[in-house]
Amino acid sequence: MKLYSFPRAPNPRRVHIFLAEKGVAVPVETVDIFKRENRQPGFLEKNPLGGIPVLELDDGSHISESVAICRYFEELHPEPALFGTSPRECAEVEMWNRRVELVLLNAAGMVWGHGSPLTAKVVKQIPENVAPNRKRAEQFFELMDRTLSGRTFLAGERVSVADITALCTIDFAAAMIELAPDPSLASVARWHAAMSARPSARA
Amino acid sequence: MKLYSFPRAPNPRRVHIFLAEKGVAVPVETVDIFKRENRQPGFLEKNPLGGIPVLELDDGSHISESVAICRYFEELHPEPALFGTSPRECAEVEMWNRRVELVLLNAAGMVWGHGSPLTAKVVKQIPENVAPNRKRAEQFFELMDRTLSGRTFLAGERVSVADITALCTIDFAAAMIELAPDPSLASVARWHAAMSARPSARA
Repeated sequence: MKLYSFPRAPNPRRVHIFLAEKGVAVPVETVDIFKRENRQPGFLEKNPLGGIPVLELDDGSHISESVAICRYFEELHPEPALFGTSPRECAEVEMWNRRVELVLLNAAGMVWGHGSPLTAKVVKQIPENVAPNRKRAEQFFELMDRTLSGRTFLAGERVSVADITALCTIDFAAAMIELAPDPSLASVARWHAAMSARPSARA
Repeated sequence: MKLYSFPRAPNPRRVHIFLAEKGVAVPVETVDIFKRENRQPGFLEKNPLGGIPVLELDDGSHISESVAICRYFEELHPEPALFGTSPRECAEVEMWNRRVELVLLNAAGMVWGHGSPLTAKVVKQIPENVAPNRKRAEQFFELMDRTLSGRTFLAGERVSVADITALCTIDFAAAMIELAPDPSLASVARWHAAMSARPSARA
């Protein structure tokens, strides 16, 4: 088993943190996305969409999509549960992980793709996409704050994959596109400090 | 238990088909999205993001996001399995469901939001977003065709939530934004005919 990854990128980081929370070690082979190694024919045979990370299994088959890889390890190593245990908790984790992805990660990706000088060379930017997506992200930070004022983690009292997705998205957006929760959002700040202090955050 | 829904819309249809495949009946209360009933304060208390469908449980709590609702019912009624059973199969279903969502559903949503006269009244359209997203969708249809030339369903030999997501997205895009797989993609055509012939497709 081997993980094709580029740990500094936000999606791979989700998987590395997930594995650290599980206490599972997987050999890593670096794929340099700045050199577009993930767009070469050999890599596209592993994942035709070209995204990373990709997990290679011992039978030579591949699993791509970060959450699909996480779910594979959740099935192999159920403890500690990061996708919930009861039907209600599984649904709450799925709901929050998707909310973070469909709003925050999507918005941050649009700002990055359409507004960063680093992506201008490889994609056709439409700068009008930047402002409305910054606003979507800021409104989502407010929803996160209201939610985290009443619970320890996004999906309840137990850390989950939704928190990992949110941490990686927020850290990426703060570092790369100057998009960060307003410091007045005290519950987000408390949650972010707690997530950042977990040993897995350095994975 | 009650499902707030608007069955003609693509995301609610995913849940209705899923429930039909499970043989589970849930009372439905219609929320008219064309009248923006899902943007009123009473509804935003159920789902602050305003999306439908939303499942109301008997304790008065709510689950939103279509796949979170589906997963709740998968946990309550494991048979027939629509999210896979073995770790490998669960990962394959998750991967394909996400590929369909992250490329095809996202691209169709961009074309719909930025290019349809029906959405022009309620969102600020950026028409430049239409052409590149049509192209993304067309490339994805080709990937689906290559995949379905070697297996019966997207994630293997068993129907899954990934097929339901793809069916609802394709039918929505064909009806509303004139975006459909080229008829020369024979494996997609065979799969689409088979999915459309299932009784659940009329749910």
